[in-house]
Amino acid sequence: MASSNGKPVPGEEGKTPAVAAEGSIGGYESLHRLLEANLSPELFKEASRLLLGLNCARQLESISLPEAATFLAETHNFDMQAFRFSADKEFLRQARVVRVGLIQNSIAVSTTCHFADQKKAIMEKIKPIIDAAGASSVNILCLQEAWTMPFAFCTREKRWCEFAEPIDGESTQFLQELAQKYNMVIVSPMLERDVNHGETVWNTAVVIGNSGNIIGIHRKNHIPRVGDFNESTYYMEGNTGHPVFETAYGKIAVNICYGRHHPLNWLAFGLNGAEIVFNPSATVGELSEPMWPIEARNAAIANSYFVGSINRVGTEVFPNPFTSGDGKPQHADFGHFYGSSHFSAPDASCTPSLSRYRDGLMTSDMDLNLCRQIKGKWAFRMTARYDMYASLLSDYLKPDFKPQVISDPLIKKRS
Amino acid sequence: MASSNGKPVPGEEGKTPAVAAEGSIGGYESLHRLLEANLSPELFKEASRLLLGLNCARQLESISLPEAATFLAETHNFDMQAFRFSADKEFLRQARVVRVGLIQNSIAVSTTCHFADQKKAIMEKIKPIIDAAGASSVNILCLQEAWTMPFAFCTREKRWCEFAEPIDGESTQFLQELAQKYNMVIVSPMLERDVNHGETVWNTAVVIGNSGNIIGIHRKNHIPRVGDFNESTYYMEGNTGHPVFETAYGKIAVNICYGRHHPLNWLAFGLNGAEIVFNPSATVGELSEPMWPIEARNAAIANSYFVGSINRVGTEVFPNPFTSGDGKPQHADFGHFYGSSHFSAPDASCTPSLSRYRDGLMTSDMDLNLCRQIKGKWAFRMTARYDMYASLLSDYLKPDFKPQVISDPLIKKRS
Repeated sequence: MASSNGKPVPGEEGKTPAVAAEGSIGGYESLHRLLEANLSPELFKEASRLLLGLNCARQLESISLPEAATFLAETHNFDMQAFRFSADKEFLRQARVVRVGLIQNSIAVSTTCHFADQKKAIMEKIKPIIDAAGASSVNILCLQEAWTMPFAFCTREKRWCEFAEPIDGESTQFLQELAQKYNMVIVSPMLERDVNHGETVWNTAVVIGNSGNIIGIHRKNHIPRVGDFNESTYYMEGNTGHPVFETAYGKIAVNICYGRHHPLNWLAFGLNGAEIVFNPSATVGELSEPMWPIEARNAAIANSYFVGSINRVGTEVFPNPFTSGDGKPQHADFGHFYGSSHFSAPDASCTPSLSRYRDGLMTSDMDLNLCRQIKGKWAFRMTARYDMYASLLSDYLKPDFKPQVISDPLIKKRS
Repeated sequence: MASSNGKPVPGEEGKTPAVAAEGSIGGYESLHRLLEANLSPELFKEASRLLLGLNCARQLESISLPEAATFLAETHNFDMQAFRFSADKEFLRQARVVRVGLIQNSIAVSTTCHFADQKKAIMEKIKPIIDAAGASSVNILCLQEAWTMPFAFCTREKRWCEFAEPIDGESTQFLQELAQKYNMVIVSPMLERDVNHGETVWNTAVVIGNSGNIIGIHRKNHIPRVGDFNESTYYMEGNTGHPVFETAYGKIAVNICYGRHHPLNWLAFGLNGAEIVFNPSATVGELSEPMWPIEARNAAIANSYFVGSINRVGTEVFPNPFTSGDGKPQHADFGHFYGSSHFSAPDASCTPSLSRYRDGLMTSDMDLNLCRQIKGKWAFRMTARYDMYASLLSDYLKPDFKPQVISDPLIKKRS
């Protein structure tokens, strides 16, 4: 959340202001911490087992990060949590443990500041979090959706497209340097300006290799028209398919934001061989919080891969009030981004979530061999009958598609 | 769970024995009740809100059932819970509120009893639960998978196929009478013997109309080969597609057991217009409990319909020990069926779950208009880009399919 006058407090630049709990849901940072603080250790362990999908055979462990990272988290007041998913040992393959990080953050200064200052302030704000990831030897790091800017699409004002950059623009260059410095793959979800195609604007993720090179891009496949998330004003459905990026540390893909509501989108990344799929998002409480713990975990289960879910934090207030098509008075923000970034694993387990209010770095070690192990155990790929569904979808696409309905002859049909 | 000598205790027939809590996970019937008993009312309300996916606009209410039903639940010791999902009022459609019920139960007598006695005892055991549903004016009721028998498929012995019946066999007739008596649609998942097709055995759901007529059947689409759930020994993939049954009370479909792991199976019922999809299941703790609260809720969200999830309860001990392909000693059961039947709604909310240990009847009122309202709000059908996925699945089916992979040229490819 920006400081009240919209400018960084002198001497406080780069620090994340603690965001106060809001209204009736205040006072705790996550369900996990709420329960931890209020249940006996024994009951909390059992509740955690059920909520995090753990069983006796495969527990989730916390891991400790280096002091340099802890120091940064304390100095810059971001939530830092780190876990380890385990997998079975195999005879013919070595374990392929990678350390993966997710960054969530609020914006750094007021949305009324000069756009260049806003972008610069965000870069300065997330730099120490990236440094903490680097100090923790994170191999693959993903930032949040459109991380260089406020999520201004609710305003319907096109001037915010000034934040769009070419693939190899300023924010990519900023991250390329850090990727090389820390030998780290970085996924950068940003607003893209495609100057070679008539200044088209896209919602894009740039995948930067651990040598600082640009491996490739993915453009958001599914565009919401939901309340204030009517992003179709700004960009169209992506034209990059479902690429999987083979990096030095594993095969990764990016399902941007609203794409998480589409099981077929998750499936497609799986069919192309993803081992980790990131879901950089921007979503607010009343709208989607009930869905947040469900969809990513389901995708990890159904597709036998890991998922890293990221949501920004804080409330972003815009200069000009707007209405939301819901009959309510005009207002200048569209609600609280509830953070809660976390990882889900193919065995149906998940980590606790980062804070609902503070910036954060979520880290987890994961043995990518677990993907094949779970594919072997549950055999979803083998029992999926894709032929049946390819055929059904082809039929469904026809304008004269007739659903397979068996009507009770003894009832009168509704009109 | 059967009594220890495998026979009903005289005078106790039809009663559900209270099943003792097991091992380290004992002492509570559901996570919801565990938290209710151990958190302050205020914190419990907040934890419930997060766990059940509620928001301020749309709360889940408990409803009270008639005394006749309560009396049956007390007399026969089954867990009875009842809720109401709400929806917005519309101008041009009346509310379409239906009352839907789910029954979960343990087997009634030992698996060593005469097969005819086992079947008879189960019928006697669930009769009062169906009566309670009838007394509660339930409109649509679904029983658990293969409800007429123990879930014997772990044994790999074919003699259990004696429990298979033709579509219009004894168990269907038993339910047809009750359907007519209570003006209730009943979904009966059972082991089918298809005498017109060479005695083929299927895992089938029979849909009985509220006049007692058979509307149609659906055969389980996806057959597990998972540990002791290697059901492919017994029956093959279903050949009935994804029918939606238009009943007097709404359009329903049945996704049997393992089909819940396949998002495309859920999708197909949605494309055919289902408003409520039942998932009658038989699944045990260590294997699937982490997935249980996730998959049905995700299906309800992704497809904008209601889901009723049912799992049997108790531990079923078989006469002949068997091994499980996991290097462990032979054993005579394959674990605890954890019950936990519940409803999920298209707005991402869900009910608490029935007991992990006792028979139960879960009832909920639901306004089916919520399906279209959520389709309108989230527009998943409209933003789904099915053409892209029909094409991808067609490509994937080809033996020479090449996944869309973009490799970092600076890394050496893994072999």
